[in-house]
Amino acid sequence: MQSSEVLTNVRAPKVARARRLLKRGFRESDGLFLAEGPQACREAASAGKVKELFLTQEAFDRYAEIVLAIEESGAEITVCTEAVIEQFSSTVSPQGMTAVVQMWDQNPSELFKPGTKLVVALTAVRDPGNAGSVIRVADAAGANGVVMSSDSVDLFNPKVVRSSVGSIFHLPISVGQELAETISAAREVGMQVLAADANGVSLYGGVDLAKPTLWVFGNEAWGIPTEVLELVDQVVSIPIYGQAESLNLATASAVCLYASAQAQNA
Amino acid sequence: MQSSEVLTNVRAPKVARARRLLKRGFRESDGLFLAEGPQACREAASAGKVKELFLTQEAFDRYAEIVLAIEESGAEITVCTEAVIEQFSSTVSPQGMTAVVQMWDQNPSELFKPGTKLVVALTAVRDPGNAGSVIRVADAAGANGVVMSSDSVDLFNPKVVRSSVGSIFHLPISVGQELAETISAAREVGMQVLAADANGVSLYGGVDLAKPTLWVFGNEAWGIPTEVLELVDQVVSIPIYGQAESLNLATASAVCLYASAQAQNA
Repeated sequence: MQSSEVLTNVRAPKVARARRLLKRGFRESDGLFLAEGPQACREAASAGKVKELFLTQEAFDRYAEIVLAIEESGAEITVCTEAVIEQFSSTVSPQGMTAVVQMWDQNPSELFKPGTKLVVALTAVRDPGNAGSVIRVADAAGANGVVMSSDSVDLFNPKVVRSSVGSIFHLPISVGQELAETISAAREVGMQVLAADANGVSLYGGVDLAKPTLWVFGNEAWGIPTEVLELVDQVVSIPIYGQAESLNLATASAVCLYASAQAQNA
Repeated sequence: MQSSEVLTNVRAPKVARARRLLKRGFRESDGLFLAEGPQACREAASAGKVKELFLTQEAFDRYAEIVLAIEESGAEITVCTEAVIEQFSSTVSPQGMTAVVQMWDQNPSELFKPGTKLVVALTAVRDPGNAGSVIRVADAAGANGVVMSSDSVDLFNPKVVRSSVGSIFHLPISVGQELAETISAAREVGMQVLAADANGVSLYGGVDLAKPTLWVFGNEAWGIPTEVLELVDQVVSIPIYGQAESLNLATASAVCLYASAQAQNA
């Protein structure tokens, strides 16, 4: 394929419109966010949510199938220079392709229903890389959805989108939630509520992981607030067999969620 | 505590000597590396390996116990401005404290001996954050050691040190190894060799995880080279229950190593 025109003007209005999506306030007012890199763009295209695609000639040639899928959906495609894409990049190497994507409504009421087996709640998770990684783990482990507390990082932060590697398009994610309400909703459909934290019962042996479970994970530095810990059925700890003080949030969530997935799918 | 003098000169010779340790070649010729932040400095101090400590007055006041431990070991302590520390920082927020640390010899012959239960081998892992995270997971899971192939990132890269959160000081880590030799050494002491990769037997059910195990993990983008896969006893896959294509290296290693640790410690 060959494109006719290459946008080189880093001050073009459409570039400014994409650039303002780096800020949460503009994402919310515009109802749009940025998906960086071919993998995220492919997933956004599959979800039918791409509004506009910016990419280099090189990416245009290399990822013809993504371009075609987006073209067929009626989205606008702009071939541009790397310098243009860098105007609205949260990373130094956006791999020559960034999409402007339509946000969707988060509807938490659908998450908890009879038969829901595994849901992840994040409370006060501030690091976007951590949040995206946990969403990816939740997706891999077959979770029915993810709930993010109102004091967590913005789901549509470009770094969350990137580190989720497409998973934000795969499973229902509720944002801006009060954890107490989430816990009540889980209990109403018969789920147990487990919090991963230090000083709990062992993940191995202390708890029936085959039961439908809402897992609560907290901020890496502060852990889970006491008032949330008081609401859960059990506080569960990952045993540390060596000298490390702890695991980070992403790896801890992987150990917990895969322990549940293994027990539930056995 | 109060320090008498604060170093403000970003061009001081001792600053230049620390700064050159950002480059692998100088780390190797000087036999020194940088540990950033209080946690890594504390661990380096416990290991008795700090040669010099740079910290702000604020960090000096806040982390008196670390300063005291390092002072007692005879290392030089320099109170300086944030601007000085930024001269040799790999991160934007080194939290006011960076230590110059003595490297140690890596002796792989001690790793594999009768009774060795769990060892992690990294082949061609290039991302320093991933490498450090896997080392932290290996430590937490009680691994006896970690082996890094010659084409992996430098263990003493400041980002590896930081993301290991002290674990590089906790367990033996061999660098510059040929995987074929590592695999032979593991087999000689009766360990099985498992490679984590797509298209293998399931982690749950396909393999006896209670056996002494050398786990091989590869580069996130390329996986494990075919010639290495041919040497292992089994290729093992983490089941994906949802729509994610895969897990990242750190979370995948957490799932595999904790599955082994659970089986071995049951």
